[in-house]
Amino acid sequence: MGDDTAIGELRAEMAALRRDVQRLSDIHDVRTLHFKYGYYIDMCLYDEACDLFAQDCIVYFLNGVYRGREGARRIYGGWFRDMFVQGGNGPVYGFLLDHFISQDIVTVSEDGKTARGRFRALMQAGSHETKEDKVRPMPDQCWESGIHENVYVKEDGVWKIQALNYNMLWQAEYGAGWAHSTVHLDPLTRTFPEDKWGPDELFDHTPKFWPHTRVVPFHYPHPVTGEAWKSEG
Amino acid sequence: MGDDTAIGELRAEMAALRRDVQRLSDIHDVRTLHFKYGYYIDMCLYDEACDLFAQDCIVYFLNGVYRGREGARRIYGGWFRDMFVQGGNGPVYGFLLDHFISQDIVTVSEDGKTARGRFRALMQAGSHETKEDKVRPMPDQCWESGIHENVYVKEDGVWKIQALNYNMLWQAEYGAGWAHSTVHLDPLTRTFPEDKWGPDELFDHTPKFWPHTRVVPFHYPHPVTGEAWKSEG
Amino acid sequence: MGDDTAIGELRAEMAALRRDVQRLSDIHDVRTLHFKYGYYIDMCLYDEACDLFAQDCIVYFLNGVYRGREGARRIYGGWFRDMFVQGGNGPVYGFLLDHFISQDIVTVSEDGKTARGRFRALMQAGSHETKEDKVRPMPDQCWESGIHENVYVKEDGVWKIQALNYNMLWQAEYGAGWAHSTVHLDPLTRTFPEDKWGPDELFDHTPKFWPHTRVVPFHYPHPVTGEAWKSEG
Repeated sequence: MGDDTAIGELRAEMAALRRDVQRLSDIHDVRTLHFKYGYYIDMCLYDEACDLFAQDCIVYFLNGVYRGREGARRIYGGWFRDMFVQGGNGPVYGFLLDHFISQDIVTVSEDGKTARGRFRALMQAGSHETKEDKVRPMPDQCWESGIHENVYVKEDGVWKIQALNYNMLWQAEYGAGWAHSTVHLDPLTRTFPEDKWGPDELFDHTPKFWPHTRVVPFHYPHPVTGEAWKSEG
Repeated sequence: MGDDTAIGELRAEMAALRRDVQRLSDIHDVRTLHFKYGYYIDMCLYDEACDLFAQDCIVYFLNGVYRGREGARRIYGGWFRDMFVQGGNGPVYGFLLDHFISQDIVTVSEDGKTARGRFRALMQAGSHETKEDKVRPMPDQCWESGIHENVYVKEDGVWKIQALNYNMLWQAEYGAGWAHSTVHLDPLTRTFPEDKWGPDELFDHTPKFWPHTRVVPFHYPHPVTGEAWKSEG
Repeated sequence: MGDDTAIGELRAEMAALRRDVQRLSDIHDVRTLHFKYGYYIDMCLYDEACDLFAQDCIVYFLNGVYRGREGARRIYGGWFRDMFVQGGNGPVYGFLLDHFISQDIVTVSEDGKTARGRFRALMQAGSHETKEDKVRPMPDQCWESGIHENVYVKEDGVWKIQALNYNMLWQAEYGAGWAHSTVHLDPLTRTFPEDKWGPDELFDHTPKFWPHTRVVPFHYPHPVTGEAWKSEG
């Protein structure tokens, strides 16, 4: 075999290897992007959280759809900030909002420009008895559990959140526990600007929360059979 | 140095790099395989869970050994399905079985054909007060914690579960907590076919559960000293 | 283009790829090093835990600073061992100390010789009612939550813990929950050798614990804006 052929083969193999390494590196970037998001929202750092989103992002929460960076600022920098920290940026005395995030499944698209990520979160939240202003409608102390099925986009080499799709599944008052609790957050009924912190749109169908149960559709096929997930609904 | 020598060196280096990248890619595949397993069993998707296993797999649960895909179908598609969802596939109203999985340690064998994985799970489980048929012997609401020390096998380029070795360590009724609870699952006493959903074999020695404690043996050596784990028992 | 030029290019590309793969491999090693640390301390395996540290390591706990392997042995092999397992190595009947660790963010330095890692831990701890000697000042059963911001060093190709910086944020008695609990561990007041298991130094400023809140500084810049974290304090 001539050197030219050998060099051509090496180049092709190198390019294939480069793609594989890039994919692994992208998976690392996306999973840590979500973990960083989690650490920010624990601490009510809504400025930092909003800066993680792409300009044309979308946020799904309860039965609401928030569009673009303006929408993200409305839910994080408006609603949550007002409700949790009275308009500040950062944690306040006596308010707990820990999101314990785990079980990451990140899948990068063939062209390497977008990715999908599934994660779960178990939240410990509440207001200490010595905190005068309680956060409502949240109980004094509670659990929450949910699954993210997010979309990410790489812009100029930087991964950003394209779609933040949080599926809250259950909430439970701490003392009563999940056997004796239903969710304390009601579905949204009004959109922006009627509700100044409201979503741009409401879902056609509001998802059912605990004690109802549902499968949050998997973005990936079955890892052995290769079958795509078929939603029942 | 001649071109032939240089090309030979590049090929050798490329092959070494390819092995390292393959190992990292395999680690990703195996850890997400277990996380996907976790999402399926949360939702009582036992068909999907069983399809993750190799034909000659083995499942360890409590003090029972279930052999082969038939054994996996007996425990997941028989026992658990009957107990948790009355024979269906998928979640039912008012039944919670969340497995919060974390702390993955995946080690791929030198030949790249098998892997071992250690994980932990913290479970939130129970039946909502509005669910008429309670899941027994599970309390109305409870915690469970355990460690997986699994074996995986790569068949035709696809990673599958070879040995699912779940070590339940403690269970606690939610209200009483772990200081005032013992485990609610009794050791198995009968094998298949005497018990239609029973294991193929029972352990010679039943592991001790909470309030007894034990180290689930580590599949990996100490990461600094390199010493293999020596079981006490 | 001549073969020599082509071979030079391939070598340069190979070296760049090798660095990227090494970085991903180091991230894997560091994250699993911390997870292995977690599994050891769950089980009160303090000999194994101490062997994870570099000779000139440093451990931060509460408001104390423990220096070097001697310091690590004082806190793990002295204080914790005395308090939790009466001087043994390994778990004892009726004592629970599970550290559920998650949300790893590992960043390797440019030269590949050091790394930083952020992790979170949610602990379930306590003494079973049938255990005669209770572990004090720990309540019979409790939660604890904290964030690690550690430093790692690679010595002779092996990653070790350089700085173990555990930031306990809240503790809660199980029955009362976090809304009605403060932390049960008091700040340290004496150093070694006055306190035989004491730290080498005390912090100038003791961090505030729950119901106070604080941001544990992020070792990494904002992943989209690239801005370094500015501590408020």
